[in-house]
Amino acid sequence: MADQLPHVFAVILAGGSGTRFWPASRKLRPKQLLSLAQGEEQTLLGATVERISPLVSPESTLISTGSHLISATRAAVPDLPDGAILAEPLAKNTAPCIAWAAQVIARRDPEAKVIVLPSDQHAADAREFRRVLGLALEEADAGRIVTVGVVPTRPETGYGYIQKGPARRGDAFEVSSFKEKPDLETAGTYVESGDYLWNAGMFIFRAADMLSAVARHLPKLSAGLEELSAADPEATSAAAVARYFERAESISIDHGVMEKESALSVVAGDFGWTDLGSWESLWEFWAKDESGNAAGSEDLFIDAERNLVVDLRTERPSEKAAALVSVRDLCVVLTDDGVLVIPRSESQRVREVVRLLQSRGRDQLL
Amino acid sequence: MADQLPHVFAVILAGGSGTRFWPASRKLRPKQLLSLAQGEEQTLLGATVERISPLVSPESTLISTGSHLISATRAAVPDLPDGAILAEPLAKNTAPCIAWAAQVIARRDPEAKVIVLPSDQHAADAREFRRVLGLALEEADAGRIVTVGVVPTRPETGYGYIQKGPARRGDAFEVSSFKEKPDLETAGTYVESGDYLWNAGMFIFRAADMLSAVARHLPKLSAGLEELSAADPEATSAAAVARYFERAESISIDHGVMEKESALSVVAGDFGWTDLGSWESLWEFWAKDESGNAAGSEDLFIDAERNLVVDLRTERPSEKAAALVSVRDLCVVLTDDGVLVIPRSESQRVREVVRLLQSRGRDQLL
Repeated sequence: MADQLPHVFAVILAGGSGTRFWPASRKLRPKQLLSLAQGEEQTLLGATVERISPLVSPESTLISTGSHLISATRAAVPDLPDGAILAEPLAKNTAPCIAWAAQVIARRDPEAKVIVLPSDQHAADAREFRRVLGLALEEADAGRIVTVGVVPTRPETGYGYIQKGPARRGDAFEVSSFKEKPDLETAGTYVESGDYLWNAGMFIFRAADMLSAVARHLPKLSAGLEELSAADPEATSAAAVARYFERAESISIDHGVMEKESALSVVAGDFGWTDLGSWESLWEFWAKDESGNAAGSEDLFIDAERNLVVDLRTERPSEKAAALVSVRDLCVVLTDDGVLVIPRSESQRVREVVRLLQSRGRDQLL
Repeated sequence: MADQLPHVFAVILAGGSGTRFWPASRKLRPKQLLSLAQGEEQTLLGATVERISPLVSPESTLISTGSHLISATRAAVPDLPDGAILAEPLAKNTAPCIAWAAQVIARRDPEAKVIVLPSDQHAADAREFRRVLGLALEEADAGRIVTVGVVPTRPETGYGYIQKGPARRGDAFEVSSFKEKPDLETAGTYVESGDYLWNAGMFIFRAADMLSAVARHLPKLSAGLEELSAADPEATSAAAVARYFERAESISIDHGVMEKESALSVVAGDFGWTDLGSWESLWEFWAKDESGNAAGSEDLFIDAERNLVVDLRTERPSEKAAALVSVRDLCVVLTDDGVLVIPRSESQRVREVVRLLQSRGRDQLL
């Protein structure tokens, strides 16, 4: 723990209600609470906390999540203290949440710096990931609001891009512009140019700087924060927090603050980043046998190629087996109560399954 | 029960060790002990017993099975008396088993007639099925060994055929010849001619006539039977039965007796017969939705066609669901510990899964 940095806090955004990993993900068990690393028990949230633990102490690590997920979230990060959970009574996108967290943290440490991280990403090279965050914290020390941009490896149309401006230090750059998800051709020109990075949704800043930025760009939200602090200086009492979220505009930190702010930096990072957004992306992420099949347990593939088998059944884990014979490019996902069979290339269509379950009122499968 | 016929016994052959229905079928849970009727709990064996119950009393209904299956078999036919199970210590094909059963029954009732039935078939029209058996019993009364021939509905290459000879009475005919499984062209000529019936493995005879036929055609087996009776007149003591089976030649009743016997009749039957031999045949048997999908529970099909979903998981049965999206002509079979995904047209290849499990020593999945 000798490396942990003074005044550094983390806020991990763990409020997602992912339907993209049905039947594994559910309302009460969203993606960040799943164990999606191959053959591992750890949740994505737990892995995120562990990844930054050399930088940030448990006492300075906060988890932002929805009220309905408090106990499941606590169970996923048992080593964090009780006060680590920031529970949002209402989902109002990221700006109200991050502003609130900045307020809570600034009260605890006026010199605090904050690392905001999604809870559902993977970084293969954790050491490099922390080096990048260290550089981002140096930029934050200079009064910048900082984001991490992932060096793109393909013309991905599913992410936003950040255009680098003039270099500042090391891998840190001014931010020239934010770009929405591009079409394939545009994405290709972005990647070829070398000037663009993937927006990975990570933000690093001094708490006081974020509060100033919120005051400049989202004055109503800032007024709500002041009201919250007036009602409860710690800014954590349930009733005052509920009133704050009820009044808050639903807006992302990207639109509400980043795109309006001028003192922005981006640190380019290349640490084996994966955004686990679909079963297809999990197949890409997992190790595969010589036929391209990816499985988490000792499954049986006979004349089967490029399939993904995710077996999350809790019954008799050492004895179970999935057998795939003469099938190709399928995702097969098993839980105790659900099963999904879908072509890998269409794995986004799992949303249609969730909608069908909703329309049929089969709430216990949601 | 007023219709139950005097002197009529049934012997239901329930020794199969079917691997063709993995992961549902196992060594200790072969096909006849599965519930394969859509949405029903009853086993195939239980349905077979129920189907003949208007003809044969529980006291006259015997189940022949392997020693290792005694308790599972008893559980499937709880209404039969304790003595109903004839346990074979060794599997020696059908002739030793049927001869033994004839001996046991002849001792109990010298005038006994016996209906031998497989335990894993389906008859949609049970009343017509019983009418056919009634006619077969009349033929047996005339001293014939009788088989039931199913009127073929397609040029099936998976069954043996029986060539009809001259008519005797009603739908009863002399047997002209038995034919092994034909190739497709030959099967086509069989079906077109109208002279051939499917061999469904049912045999009806007077117990004494079968014992005479065994004495004529299988003298060694007959000697073994005499030794068994000498050691135990009831022919049921475990040690004597074990010695009988140890010494017995492994041979089918078809090759050992039927193909050598001259006083044979076949009764042509058309009662919605189905031999459930593969997942593919189950798909054919089950009701389907307008897209050709067959399922036993409330599963979810989105842009999916002609699939079979068999969900035998015992956990939370009312809440579970399988979702198939954009897949065609697949069998998806679920148990608590196993899963199979295989194209319908290749469902016989499930044997390769069983062999792979054997080679890997995963005995608990066998």
